[in-house]
Amino acid sequence: MTVTHTSIEKPSLDIASVVNRRAAGHSLEAPFYTSQEIYELDLDVIFGRHWFFCATEAEIPEAGDYVTVNVGPHSVIIVRDDDEEIRAFRNVCRHRGARLLDQGCGSVGNIVCPYHQWTYRTDGSLVFAEYQPSTFDREQFGLRPVHVRTVGGLVFFCLSDEPPSDFDEFSRFVEPYLLPYDLRTAKVAHQTDIVERGNWKLVMENNRECHHCDVSHPELLTAYFPFNRHSEEDVPPRMRPLYERYKAAEAALTATRTAAGFPQEERRELDSRPTGFQLFHLPLDGAGASLGKGGEQVCKKLLGSITDPKFGDLSLHMQPNAWFHFLSDHAVVFWVQPLSPGETLVRTTWLVHPDAVEGVDYDVDALTAVWKATNDQDRALVEATQCGVANPGYVPGPYSTVEDDVEAFVNWYVKRIRSSLG
Amino acid sequence: MTVTHTSIEKPSLDIASVVNRRAAGHSLEAPFYTSQEIYELDLDVIFGRHWFFCATEAEIPEAGDYVTVNVGPHSVIIVRDDDEEIRAFRNVCRHRGARLLDQGCGSVGNIVCPYHQWTYRTDGSLVFAEYQPSTFDREQFGLRPVHVRTVGGLVFFCLSDEPPSDFDEFSRFVEPYLLPYDLRTAKVAHQTDIVERGNWKLVMENNRECHHCDVSHPELLTAYFPFNRHSEEDVPPRMRPLYERYKAAEAALTATRTAAGFPQEERRELDSRPTGFQLFHLPLDGAGASLGKGGEQVCKKLLGSITDPKFGDLSLHMQPNAWFHFLSDHAVVFWVQPLSPGETLVRTTWLVHPDAVEGVDYDVDALTAVWKATNDQDRALVEATQCGVANPGYVPGPYSTVEDDVEAFVNWYVKRIRSSLG
Amino acid sequence: MTVTHTSIEKPSLDIASVVNRRAAGHSLEAPFYTSQEIYELDLDVIFGRHWFFCATEAEIPEAGDYVTVNVGPHSVIIVRDDDEEIRAFRNVCRHRGARLLDQGCGSVGNIVCPYHQWTYRTDGSLVFAEYQPSTFDREQFGLRPVHVRTVGGLVFFCLSDEPPSDFDEFSRFVEPYLLPYDLRTAKVAHQTDIVERGNWKLVMENNRECHHCDVSHPELLTAYFPFNRHSEEDVPPRMRPLYERYKAAEAALTATRTAAGFPQEERRELDSRPTGFQLFHLPLDGAGASLGKGGEQVCKKLLGSITDPKFGDLSLHMQPNAWFHFLSDHAVVFWVQPLSPGETLVRTTWLVHPDAVEGVDYDVDALTAVWKATNDQDRALVEATQCGVANPGYVPGPYSTVEDDVEAFVNWYVKRIRSSLG
Repeated sequence: MTVTHTSIEKPSLDIASVVNRRAAGHSLEAPFYTSQEIYELDLDVIFGRHWFFCATEAEIPEAGDYVTVNVGPHSVIIVRDDDEEIRAFRNVCRHRGARLLDQGCGSVGNIVCPYHQWTYRTDGSLVFAEYQPSTFDREQFGLRPVHVRTVGGLVFFCLSDEPPSDFDEFSRFVEPYLLPYDLRTAKVAHQTDIVERGNWKLVMENNRECHHCDVSHPELLTAYFPFNRHSEEDVPPRMRPLYERYKAAEAALTATRTAAGFPQEERRELDSRPTGFQLFHLPLDGAGASLGKGGEQVCKKLLGSITDPKFGDLSLHMQPNAWFHFLSDHAVVFWVQPLSPGETLVRTTWLVHPDAVEGVDYDVDALTAVWKATNDQDRALVEATQCGVANPGYVPGPYSTVEDDVEAFVNWYVKRIRSSLG
Repeated sequence: MTVTHTSIEKPSLDIASVVNRRAAGHSLEAPFYTSQEIYELDLDVIFGRHWFFCATEAEIPEAGDYVTVNVGPHSVIIVRDDDEEIRAFRNVCRHRGARLLDQGCGSVGNIVCPYHQWTYRTDGSLVFAEYQPSTFDREQFGLRPVHVRTVGGLVFFCLSDEPPSDFDEFSRFVEPYLLPYDLRTAKVAHQTDIVERGNWKLVMENNRECHHCDVSHPELLTAYFPFNRHSEEDVPPRMRPLYERYKAAEAALTATRTAAGFPQEERRELDSRPTGFQLFHLPLDGAGASLGKGGEQVCKKLLGSITDPKFGDLSLHMQPNAWFHFLSDHAVVFWVQPLSPGETLVRTTWLVHPDAVEGVDYDVDALTAVWKATNDQDRALVEATQCGVANPGYVPGPYSTVEDDVEAFVNWYVKRIRSSLG
Repeated sequence: MTVTHTSIEKPSLDIASVVNRRAAGHSLEAPFYTSQEIYELDLDVIFGRHWFFCATEAEIPEAGDYVTVNVGPHSVIIVRDDDEEIRAFRNVCRHRGARLLDQGCGSVGNIVCPYHQWTYRTDGSLVFAEYQPSTFDREQFGLRPVHVRTVGGLVFFCLSDEPPSDFDEFSRFVEPYLLPYDLRTAKVAHQTDIVERGNWKLVMENNRECHHCDVSHPELLTAYFPFNRHSEEDVPPRMRPLYERYKAAEAALTATRTAAGFPQEERRELDSRPTGFQLFHLPLDGAGASLGKGGEQVCKKLLGSITDPKFGDLSLHMQPNAWFHFLSDHAVVFWVQPLSPGETLVRTTWLVHPDAVEGVDYDVDALTAVWKATNDQDRALVEATQCGVANPGYVPGPYSTVEDDVEAFVNWYVKRIRSSLG
């Protein structure tokens, strides 16, 4: 008796052709959002070969503190070692492959395998392995390291042996902007994980435009203006008064930040480099301070060396998987983990001043209300889009004039895939 | 670091060989019921290129009323437009692909995308899309239409650009039989959706024989005779008295319908044409009127122009996915949606006279009792068969003499697949 | 409209290469634990062509008693026929393929298909099939038999038409060891099924070493010594006193069994033959009788012809899927069913003397406590390993000196796969 394994020949998708026929200014073809094969290509080319934002230093303040981060089937340990250096390792025992750390975060002395107690120091070196022959060389069996870098309290890893070298330039440019916020010593006030039933690229695309904000995000618009990449001629008459308020707030913010002596130059290198990013300022509406009711502060203590609560929103967009809002009184950090072609985890972390006391300086519900509501609204939009692009009736459509950061994300993605094809 | 994607070469199933070696008079080989590849072939060749029954006009009586219909990953909007014409469109926005209508049915003025509010009229034309450049031509971005036809109140769509042309002949033949029931103005009294864990072809095959009725469907046999395609010599001695009652009821029904001046010719073109169908009459047992206790009526108002409740059952079988029972006092409409290789949705809709009042003229439980019980019994049989054919120990077996409509369904299916292979 | 089925070419895994590059003394590469393709290869080569332990005779004591056993998509009926012979058949009707028996165990007169009542005797012959033409030959449509063998009350089947012939030698060697336990007439005291989210090979590998027992199995170590394949030089100083007690218990057990006139020769043919096995004795700690508190008996009646409760543990390990512990007062039988690449069912059956009365001679909780706890601990270890080996950061690691039965299992597996490749 033989079990017969049969499959019908399917016409293969020539990835080079699909990538090359991509129409500029249009959304991607369906397989980029739905196919297992392209998902695996993304894990390899995008998540396997680029710098991946994975945590803030605030999450692992003490020696022995760790988080584990999953990217598809990968699991990586980010740990602060005994010398307070941040290290990253594959979360796999070198003996028979058991997962070493099962929790998302915690604190350890050594890293001990639950199966046969192989024991590793937080620098990755193997210090104990029982019943091995005398020829066994412990030095050959340390944890497999993963490249890791930090920038102003933000932690990135790269699974590749040869990470993109332009990270240095990114780091040099961005760090001065982050230093005033002193995120290295910040405190995690809250963290949420939500799973969106959509491809990770739809989650990113949704983040890269505010065309949908006007109708979909009433809470967000109590503090933000519904403009992002809108030129003056884009603004419809009904929004003209709002736009004028926006321009005035922008001018005031520029004056404030310049007076404070903080760097002010914006940079938009979203699709021109491996470590694509954009750094820009957003003025706030209403009281103009933060995301409280009417634009009020949500934490009494301001971050780092900031003294004026009306300090706007310093926004950082990173390819492929993160975005950040740095406000005078708190920071909100967002990043995505792909789980499957049609599922993505979005982790949101709220950071406040290390001395801020819950219930005294801030209230968690008030601090997190706007982005919790906004995340959930975005989840619904991403899920409607996943449903739609999976429909064989879908054809890529044209981006509007205010969706050029979506286009930049897609351009970056297509370029990176293309360059991997050599 | 490179994620390595590996797979072992599997011997490919040459679809032409499998189709060509099909043994006449036998059930299909296992992959036709279990493989993802053949499921996708079915979506393409069977559901993508044939007329697919999807709704009754009674479900969308007013302008703006719609249903959405899923066929595998496809989603189609069936909507009555402002001119009361029935239209069908791909349920996908032409901008960035969001699903437009998320509910199974409802009523709209225009069709508005939830993402960026692109707005379409019920005739599919795009009337609003914000932030587009001046070169944008709205006429190019109407909803993608799907071919749609109605016959006597029954709605069919075809996803192909070139639908089978024999639908005209089918329509001409069948419509006169349906007109007396006046289904266009009928009222939906009840609708159920059940998911059967079996391939859609097993659901259809189960519908196409009553060999299993004798033991499995006690409720059904209070009204129907357990004969279908039984010739006189097929009838075992124990069933002889029942068979004689059946033949007498059949003769009486023919006389009644002829006296009423209704068309009487039966037609069985199940496997000889793309739009395969069978139209035939079934006499009823007991009181002979309908599916109530002892064969009594279940709705006081008779359909359309019918005046004699003892009007039998006009049965219509359609390839690939529907069957219908038209009785004097109600109609029951069944159709299947494939969900995956091993899952199929069966929707059952009960129609009554438009003026029939629930609780006065009919009781929903009494109206639906027989087919609810029968559907559930069939579900169990289909699921046992799916389990069995997925077992590598399964070999196709021979149909009995009373299963020739199953053979006709399988023949039709195999012919359609063959013809697609050119 | 055509649904396009596309896939990206993935580099194929050349199975011969992977098998040939396997490093001796190391765990297998990841695809052996995670890939659907290798899972299907395992179903074909390992489970489709070797003897598979599936039940004890005690589970089907009377004519008409049956169990159904699933191996991946296979389902097999094991039934005691009217002549008290044990038979095995494919659990599929020869008509249209319905699964015949839906329950895991039960008792039947004949085997009747639920769909159209085709009826088979317990010897597999077809005795009833309605509405077949006169040319129909019932003899051609009996149930498809599966090879089945019993050894001392243990039941094995083989799905292949040509089962490994070395089963005879295995049977001749092992049967004399089992006869004193008289398992044929034993009684099932308890049975549990647990699903471990790990590949079946990880479940087997975990069973084949006790390196992990010391830390993971406190309950087990109340009765057993944490040694298995430990040579004297393997024993660390902290365990030296325990090891001396172990050697003394081993000597006492040898004396007891020799005095009883029972066979004593051990045999370890784990990777040198298709029907790989190991038969050996394990002394017990504490009172030395069984798995009760402090090593006490857990059933008052001893099995078969055994008179001395301090009779140790006769252990039998079988490739590919079973292991057994035969004690003086009960036997525990373990076997695994692969469910998917990452899921395995482990069935555990406790057997006692046929006259033992629950609540009088034994208490189910006390009888099963040690192995229920141990099974659950092993489940957690297997699941941690499945998580780890699925991580692309996993590389095969070296077995320790006390894991040579794991190496033997893997060797056997690799040899069997290799030999199937010709």
